[in-house]
Amino acid sequence: MASPTDLVSEALSGSVRALAKLITMVENELPGAVEALQQLYPKTGHAYIIGITGPPGSGKSTLTDKITKQLRKKEYTVGIVAVDPTSPFTGGALLGDRLRMQDVTNDAGVFVRSMATRGTLGGLSKATADTIKILDAFGKDFILIETVGVGQDEVDIVKTADTTLLISVPGLGDEIQALKAGIMEIGDIFVVNKADREGADRLVTELSLMLDLSPTTSPWRPPVIKTIAPTGEGVPELIEKILMHQQFLQSGQGLSKKRNERARGEIINLIEQEISKYIHKMLKYDLPFDEVIEQVVARKKDPYSFAHKVTEPFAKYYQIYKVDKPKS
Amino acid sequence: MASPTDLVSEALSGSVRALAKLITMVENELPGAVEALQQLYPKTGHAYIIGITGPPGSGKSTLTDKITKQLRKKEYTVGIVAVDPTSPFTGGALLGDRLRMQDVTNDAGVFVRSMATRGTLGGLSKATADTIKILDAFGKDFILIETVGVGQDEVDIVKTADTTLLISVPGLGDEIQALKAGIMEIGDIFVVNKADREGADRLVTELSLMLDLSPTTSPWRPPVIKTIAPTGEGVPELIEKILMHQQFLQSGQGLSKKRNERARGEIINLIEQEISKYIHKMLKYDLPFDEVIEQVVARKKDPYSFAHKVTEPFAKYYQIYKVDKPKS
Repeated sequence: MASPTDLVSEALSGSVRALAKLITMVENELPGAVEALQQLYPKTGHAYIIGITGPPGSGKSTLTDKITKQLRKKEYTVGIVAVDPTSPFTGGALLGDRLRMQDVTNDAGVFVRSMATRGTLGGLSKATADTIKILDAFGKDFILIETVGVGQDEVDIVKTADTTLLISVPGLGDEIQALKAGIMEIGDIFVVNKADREGADRLVTELSLMLDLSPTTSPWRPPVIKTIAPTGEGVPELIEKILMHQQFLQSGQGLSKKRNERARGEIINLIEQEISKYIHKMLKYDLPFDEVIEQVVARKKDPYSFAHKVTEPFAKYYQIYKVDKPKS
Repeated sequence: MASPTDLVSEALSGSVRALAKLITMVENELPGAVEALQQLYPKTGHAYIIGITGPPGSGKSTLTDKITKQLRKKEYTVGIVAVDPTSPFTGGALLGDRLRMQDVTNDAGVFVRSMATRGTLGGLSKATADTIKILDAFGKDFILIETVGVGQDEVDIVKTADTTLLISVPGLGDEIQALKAGIMEIGDIFVVNKADREGADRLVTELSLMLDLSPTTSPWRPPVIKTIAPTGEGVPELIEKILMHQQFLQSGQGLSKKRNERARGEIINLIEQEISKYIHKMLKYDLPFDEVIEQVVARKKDPYSFAHKVTEPFAKYYQIYKVDKPKS
């Protein structure tokens, strides 16, 4: 098997095969994954990341493909990461859609990767973040993350984007009500897809009204765009708004602020995962953990006191390093 | 405000008001929450926990209410925890259902609690586990956890049950396909609800076939039961199967194995959360973390090496305690 360094240099000189292998390596946390990411990291930061989210049936995949085609017309290269948490009841609908939409995948300027493994080590959002970095280092101008917006995980994934499109469709019922529940603030551009359906104009009006009423200090007022993905109607206007939002972010502190926040979150995740590995090993080997569990189940010990006991040395380390007070 | 000890003793002597306060305390990780849980813990272990999950629209809430009524007829007391992850697009459908189904909530032998806060500290599954413990200590004979089975989190929540009911309905499309995707194994009893709909018998046949084909070493073969929740048809039979499964678990090692696994998972979660708090504080105060982020964003540092550096002292601690090898 090729070394991480070989794979990295092959990918950086344009090998799609090496690129795919690197993603698999990272997704499964195979040996060499961290080394490869360390080597690739300095080459990242060029790509612009677009998040595309919406409920099942809102036409995200078709829209992603149309956006991709428009970007290709402008000679941008594109990476697509389709994140499907394979929710137990919806199966893998997104991936099914992806398979049906193969026209963009025959274009060498487009690389499509699906993330569906529920059991991905380190979590789906880490795998997605790492894949984005690899595609970024590979030289893609735009990376589209497409995800079903049904849970907190997926929202977290799409939050890592520079520009987020929130897709809704008329007739799914209670759209506005649902948007209120906490997703409104992640949308930079609101897309009413399937705009040839009844109720599209009303949905646009309701979204606009809600945006006008929402308490925000940002000078960016998210536009509401109507599209009909299969015919491509509205997609050029959507691209225009995406580029406007990009310019908006680049002109002020917006983009660097977003990217700082993203780096902060990522570092914290990395640290937590590393520590978590030690804890798992520790519980496996050091302590008579099985006995402890028996005692907890028998109500002779409580789990809270035991957890406290295990973490005490960490707490001590933390005090030695005098981190309980802000530095003067 | 009452002290945790006062609240615990009031709840243990039957005060529903103290019970509700304790749950709020624990859900929000208010001061005293851990103390209260430590005091309550020895009183737990009596309740039998039933998980009820299925896709949106499968009639879980109505079914939960009918099950509750049947259990009440047998003079068992019941606690219901309705977990609604308030997914950004579905809003709070489950809670809406709950509000409509008020008849059981006027019964003093039934306590209903909804968990919907997305931002619950420590996560929804910790809040649920703690609430179950409080209801258990309070003396409920059965605790029903009702959750929309749409994501990994919800599946994890329902996995903490002793007996899990997996609800499906005819006509939602691709049910079997979806069940394949990894949820099949969590069901102890399969319920085909809305069994008066077309396709119910076919769904029963398909589920049975799939259960026959599934590779399992357990002597428990999950039964497939038809119900019509609004009329209560099939519910007495369902209760019978639940009690049969309970007996099955109690007769062998099943129940203690399940409860050991649950305790193990819970202890690991508690430890990880504790450590995570230290890391957050450490990053906040000790290290010039903002500078590090700037350097990471500027590609002068990579996040992987930095995470490694931060976790190194933990790794050393871990080596000192010689936990890198199994004990001889």
